[in-house]
Amino acid sequence: MTTQFVFDFATTTKVTKELAGGKGANLAEMTRIGLPVPPGFTITTEACLQYDAAGRKLPDTIREQTLTALAELEAKTGKRLGDNTNPLFVSVRSGAVVSMPGMMDTVLNLGMNDDTARAFAEQTGNPRFAYDCYRRFLQMFSDVVLGVDMFYFERELEHYREQKGYKTDPELTADDWKELIQTFKLIVQKKHKQPFPEDPHEQLMLAVAAVFRSWYNDRAMIYRRVHHIPHTLGTAVNIQSMVFGNMGDTSGTGVAFTRNPSTGEATLYGEYLVNAQGEDVVAGIRTPNPIAELASAMPDVFAQFKETCERLEAHYRDMQDIEFTVEDGKLYLLQTRNGKRTAAAGVRIAVEMVREGILTREEALLRVDADQVDKLLHARIDDSVDRDVFAKGLPASPGAASGAIVFSADDAAKRAADGERVILVRPETTPDDIHGIIAAEAVLTTRGGMTSHAAVVARGMGKACVCGCEELNVGENTLSVAGETLVEGTIITLDGGTGEVYIGEAPMVMPELSDEFNELLTWADDVRRMMVRANADQPLDAKRAVEFGAEGIGLCRTEHMFMEADRIPVVREMIFAKTMTEREAALQRLEPMQEEDFFGLFEEMGGRPVTIRLLDPPLHEFLPDKEELIVRVTELGITGEHPAELTEKRRLLSLVSELEEKNPMLGHRGCRLGMTHPEIYAMQARAIFKAAVRSGAVPEVMIPLVGHVNELAAMRAVVEEEAARVEADQGVTLTYTVGTMIEVPRAAITADVIAAEADFFSFGTNDLTQTTFGYSRDDAEGKFLTQYVERETLPRNPFVHIDEDGVGRLVRQGVELGRGSKPGLKAGICGEHGGDPESIDFCERVGLDYVSCSPYRVPTARLAAAQATLRLRSGETVEV
Amino acid sequence: MTTQFVFDFATTTKVTKELAGGKGANLAEMTRIGLPVPPGFTITTEACLQYDAAGRKLPDTIREQTLTALAELEAKTGKRLGDNTNPLFVSVRSGAVVSMPGMMDTVLNLGMNDDTARAFAEQTGNPRFAYDCYRRFLQMFSDVVLGVDMFYFERELEHYREQKGYKTDPELTADDWKELIQTFKLIVQKKHKQPFPEDPHEQLMLAVAAVFRSWYNDRAMIYRRVHHIPHTLGTAVNIQSMVFGNMGDTSGTGVAFTRNPSTGEATLYGEYLVNAQGEDVVAGIRTPNPIAELASAMPDVFAQFKETCERLEAHYRDMQDIEFTVEDGKLYLLQTRNGKRTAAAGVRIAVEMVREGILTREEALLRVDADQVDKLLHARIDDSVDRDVFAKGLPASPGAASGAIVFSADDAAKRAADGERVILVRPETTPDDIHGIIAAEAVLTTRGGMTSHAAVVARGMGKACVCGCEELNVGENTLSVAGETLVEGTIITLDGGTGEVYIGEAPMVMPELSDEFNELLTWADDVRRMMVRANADQPLDAKRAVEFGAEGIGLCRTEHMFMEADRIPVVREMIFAKTMTEREAALQRLEPMQEEDFFGLFEEMGGRPVTIRLLDPPLHEFLPDKEELIVRVTELGITGEHPAELTEKRRLLSLVSELEEKNPMLGHRGCRLGMTHPEIYAMQARAIFKAAVRSGAVPEVMIPLVGHVNELAAMRAVVEEEAARVEADQGVTLTYTVGTMIEVPRAAITADVIAAEADFFSFGTNDLTQTTFGYSRDDAEGKFLTQYVERETLPRNPFVHIDEDGVGRLVRQGVELGRGSKPGLKAGICGEHGGDPESIDFCERVGLDYVSCSPYRVPTARLAAAQATLRLRSGETVEV
Repeated sequence: MTTQFVFDFATTTKVTKELAGGKGANLAEMTRIGLPVPPGFTITTEACLQYDAAGRKLPDTIREQTLTALAELEAKTGKRLGDNTNPLFVSVRSGAVVSMPGMMDTVLNLGMNDDTARAFAEQTGNPRFAYDCYRRFLQMFSDVVLGVDMFYFERELEHYREQKGYKTDPELTADDWKELIQTFKLIVQKKHKQPFPEDPHEQLMLAVAAVFRSWYNDRAMIYRRVHHIPHTLGTAVNIQSMVFGNMGDTSGTGVAFTRNPSTGEATLYGEYLVNAQGEDVVAGIRTPNPIAELASAMPDVFAQFKETCERLEAHYRDMQDIEFTVEDGKLYLLQTRNGKRTAAAGVRIAVEMVREGILTREEALLRVDADQVDKLLHARIDDSVDRDVFAKGLPASPGAASGAIVFSADDAAKRAADGERVILVRPETTPDDIHGIIAAEAVLTTRGGMTSHAAVVARGMGKACVCGCEELNVGENTLSVAGETLVEGTIITLDGGTGEVYIGEAPMVMPELSDEFNELLTWADDVRRMMVRANADQPLDAKRAVEFGAEGIGLCRTEHMFMEADRIPVVREMIFAKTMTEREAALQRLEPMQEEDFFGLFEEMGGRPVTIRLLDPPLHEFLPDKEELIVRVTELGITGEHPAELTEKRRLLSLVSELEEKNPMLGHRGCRLGMTHPEIYAMQARAIFKAAVRSGAVPEVMIPLVGHVNELAAMRAVVEEEAARVEADQGVTLTYTVGTMIEVPRAAITADVIAAEADFFSFGTNDLTQTTFGYSRDDAEGKFLTQYVERETLPRNPFVHIDEDGVGRLVRQGVELGRGSKPGLKAGICGEHGGDPESIDFCERVGLDYVSCSPYRVPTARLAAAQATLRLRSGETVEV
Repeated sequence: MTTQFVFDFATTTKVTKELAGGKGANLAEMTRIGLPVPPGFTITTEACLQYDAAGRKLPDTIREQTLTALAELEAKTGKRLGDNTNPLFVSVRSGAVVSMPGMMDTVLNLGMNDDTARAFAEQTGNPRFAYDCYRRFLQMFSDVVLGVDMFYFERELEHYREQKGYKTDPELTADDWKELIQTFKLIVQKKHKQPFPEDPHEQLMLAVAAVFRSWYNDRAMIYRRVHHIPHTLGTAVNIQSMVFGNMGDTSGTGVAFTRNPSTGEATLYGEYLVNAQGEDVVAGIRTPNPIAELASAMPDVFAQFKETCERLEAHYRDMQDIEFTVEDGKLYLLQTRNGKRTAAAGVRIAVEMVREGILTREEALLRVDADQVDKLLHARIDDSVDRDVFAKGLPASPGAASGAIVFSADDAAKRAADGERVILVRPETTPDDIHGIIAAEAVLTTRGGMTSHAAVVARGMGKACVCGCEELNVGENTLSVAGETLVEGTIITLDGGTGEVYIGEAPMVMPELSDEFNELLTWADDVRRMMVRANADQPLDAKRAVEFGAEGIGLCRTEHMFMEADRIPVVREMIFAKTMTEREAALQRLEPMQEEDFFGLFEEMGGRPVTIRLLDPPLHEFLPDKEELIVRVTELGITGEHPAELTEKRRLLSLVSELEEKNPMLGHRGCRLGMTHPEIYAMQARAIFKAAVRSGAVPEVMIPLVGHVNELAAMRAVVEEEAARVEADQGVTLTYTVGTMIEVPRAAITADVIAAEADFFSFGTNDLTQTTFGYSRDDAEGKFLTQYVERETLPRNPFVHIDEDGVGRLVRQGVELGRGSKPGLKAGICGEHGGDPESIDFCERVGLDYVSCSPYRVPTARLAAAQATLRLRSGETVEV
């Protein structure tokens, strides 16, 4: 049996979204429930893959089935494609399974040629409209299908306007357009080396192929990579009879969300343009009117639209993003889909839909993108400081950001790669700017509305965006308003929640969790099995973590305490000590400082568990920069100045050289330091236990970088000896545990043996990823890892999402072996993966007891842990 | 039932070597077969452990059993310990399970006090002899048991001699000794704070405890560490009635091997001293006579001894190392054991014992220490060059070595740690010098014979040694002969096979394999299952490898070819290329050089398989030293000289900085280079295939550092594309395979998936050990690994012997997963472990197809592979 590649919207067969794409499936669904959808049909995603497999050619089966469906469409509309009296015009749109807004190509008004345009002019009695449609089709088709750059047509149009003394397009008459159409055809002939195809059937097949081809274009590939959409999904193509929003003042086109996608508020949110075609709204070329104004402009249409919105939301049980066109007073729906939203809106909508009885709590929990919710904790500008607003635009995507202004996506990408925070400033953005938006902290545009490309994309990425800031002028590498001009590199701050732009870096404050978010997290806490802890080194971090719901500290890095300015000299004394007596003296000075550090942390955590990792990095991290020393020693050696400094610097240089390592990541660090300098670990243990006595805490002492059980046994003995000493000195009985990081492969492989000496395991998946792959993260990310991810050598960056096949297998083995020899052994994760929802899902599946992450990821982790529990309960695995 | 801690030599119970120690078990065995052994008994190793467990005190049970055995000994000899008319004297000697020559303490003549000495004087009619024995006992007991340094006694003796005008000890009379004995007792009183114990039973218990204690002294601990002897074995103590070799000219003592322990020749080999106690021979204080001279000195004794030697060798089926004493013309055996031997002797003895029908071939194969046989391939001095001999001593341990002379063990250890090759020069060595001997290339002594401490230890370690070079004078940090004086640090060369010493570094030549060794290896080849390949980068290495029996090349490191002086500039051009055209131009110049490299290798290997690894190290390894550049740039910047050089150096510095990595081991290297610079791998592949076409070789192209199957797939595609191009260009069909190194944990863990793209696996266990442990070998060995091995945190150095529990588990998993998805997948090992017998045993057990090692380890690997096959066949596992 021949595969069915084409499905009419009105088909009775239930066509999956995977096959018909999101748009096609929803058009069919809307047709099915009786909403006003222009008739048409869908060519499936499977056809796209066939097209690719056939060497980017349309197989005959697909052509034939398309022509059959076209014939049915002609029968249904009573019009015929290419007919000289009653011509059918169609739109040809892509429709992927996962929405990729603006990424792929679309052709409107297909079917136009000299004959059908003339017929259309006669039929509508509006030759200017008909020829405007024709020239739009010519431009769009030539650009998208034939690859003739839009620029040539725009230049010709501009030239023509100047010649004629016109200021705007509406001044052009039907004859003007007719003249231009002939010029446009000459451009096509010249650039494309072939005449413009007048045959509408040829146009159709070429357009279908072009849409399929656009699935494989660069910007679509990048978008999919960023959003982790498999390239193998393919896109469907939707052929739909045209309705015209540009037929005059009773026509129009618009885009609306059933709820506010920025805040989540349950009011219609969107924009429309009178007398315009759909692309005009999305492209951001004209600034549209708020949707609410449609109520007065076209009351009947608005009422019908509002009712339709409610129906669609109830039907899909989610906030909808709807495209519509009004043709001569009649409403048509061109698309509906679940709307993209900010994290804040996502949370509010989910919670309110539970209150409204639309969703269950479990559904609501699964509905929110856990990876995005830490955006809710992003900084906003401190209101308590008065600042002069430089400019104000539309609050298109909330959040505040500071950075250096740049005027092209390439510059944004380049400067960001050098570690600079940049804000991308453009008159408007296009899909070609996507890499710049990814690189920028925020986006500022001078044109376009809340549903313009920049706004939609920025919201999707959770980046701050101010749109349509029309008072600003973008010149060549300058941005100016009322006489004030900013050049490239100037630091500005913008607030996407208010639309305000400031010069310089504004002080930020951290927001509270919203009530809805708090409610959602409470539901998450009820559901989740795993505990959530935070990685925190300072009392302030600990406080923040507890506010965000952390149930303990999973990783306190003691070396951060050593790095403080007033301690570095003492730390260096310790490192350079020539005798044990000298070293002990330095340690004695460090001990009370460490004790206060731990005491502060214990107090802040008020009895919650605190895991403290003993000193981990190589000692030379605490030393002065070697290359600077070399320069200074060379200088002083030549000039003969400051002989005392020269002696001292030479001494330092020799000490630094002695401690230098070729691969410090794999060198003398972690418990290897403790093994060769047990006095350091002993000092830290004393400080921990003394602080514990004072605050009544139950510390969990963690030994880093253990590879062999003997290391853990030896370090455990050092810790226990100090505990016994503190107990004896102070006449108390301490409660504490001693555990280990599992962060080199050997520890995971021999976890059964190591468990004998460990009260708990904490998987340090940052280092475990480095050693399992043999990557130094510092070197890899700059040199080859970016390419690996871009070219999909690796499915994802293993430092962001745990590599389940490799690193994950070691984690699983570590848990199983550890609990095999010590049933019920407590095990957690404290690498960065502890705050990544996908990795948290993995942690749930391997049965870890807790995840630990940075304080700001704690809400994410609480939600993700609940989602993981729900997914595991329903047997679903995480989507990768 | 009480444990039996004491066994009489004449016991009918068969006491194991583990319990009685080697010496005790053999004394009992010799007693059993009727050889003349002085009666006595053994206190077991178990008693030693009990002594330690009881806090280094002798438990009562052990005391009581000792006294009971003593009573039996008294009954048997008719003498009594401490008796005033017929006193018994005993020796108290250690006896470990594994021989540790000179490591532990011994006390002779125990039972002496003022009364028994007088009785002994009367009994023997030789007061001078009796009091000499007494003072010897006093010195030895005070030193070993009471911890009063021998020095104080020697100083007093010297002082006394001067006072009396004596030149040598024999001039002292009985009265002189008596007088000195009283002085010695005062020394003991002063230093030990207690009088010398006159009670022989107290002496006995103190001496037993001292021997047990000596098991735990530092030098014994170091010796065991070096020789991998477990500390938990403990030592036994042998109490034996004294026989006196110092009773006059019809008495004597000696040491002999049943075959020559240096060459293996089947003739008696040893030394004896007339009128001496046993320790005099081993201590090397007097230079003894060759054993052959005993035939004329004491013909009857010699005949009896020779017959006894033959009997013992037949009984033990191995070459014996025998200690004997002649008391007034009567032969007594004091010890026999399997003799230590050089690698050459080991091979010759094993092969000749097969010829003599004593051993089977399989037994002979297992008898030779595979780890030692590469010593047979050690350099010897090139005879074709005439050289002046500086001095000549005894050829105590064969092999030739050059190095800087040092005069103390500490200096030897220090300079060797800095990477210097040193030769330890001492008048004689003692067990306290052990760390210096380990550190040195060779040992030179001016006193002592072929069985002196230096000679025995050096042979055991396979180090060259020249002993008893009496013409040399060792001064304070000088070495002189006939007016010529060498200072510390002077380079000398010595030949332990001839006893010759030369000034300066002599040219060396490599020896041929001996006929016996070749025969043994042929037997090994018949037995072994695994193939043996060599790691070789140059035709010369390949030639050598084939001569040694390599059956292919398992690892050709192409980067070594890039390092050559004439290529480095071109390699740098390639690295610094700003455009692909520039890079391609540099690669084009490298390609013919590489092609010649490979052609040379293929020709040398004559059709044997050759595995070529594509470029592996990070590119910056080919660049100039950064710190030197910084110094030069700073200098030129200040002085203003050579502005052109400054510009160039600055440019270089910036390029070098760009390529610098924090952890190069884990950085942009291996296939990651190939992924980002496929043109380099393409060039190498072309060179390989062009060379293969010319020589008809079947190359095995190996992709390094693969962690994800996609890397291998991509690099395989590059290689295959070049193969296809060469095939097309030259109209040939190539045969080749493409495989991968398994050298990061992820590769082993996902070996099932990787196998799909691999024709073979080669385990790179050097890097796999680094990543599995998270050790950088460069950093670890200097900073903590030495301590880890010394303190037994790690049972052994995992870079020398494969870590079976960790790294080994990954290798096993890699093999199983790989063959699970691709049955029969060829797998080998090419890390340094490929030449380590223990690791080879592991490779056999996991079923690898081949091992690959350095050319000089090939014979070792052939033998070790055969031993592994034999062990696996008999179900025995390797002794660790």
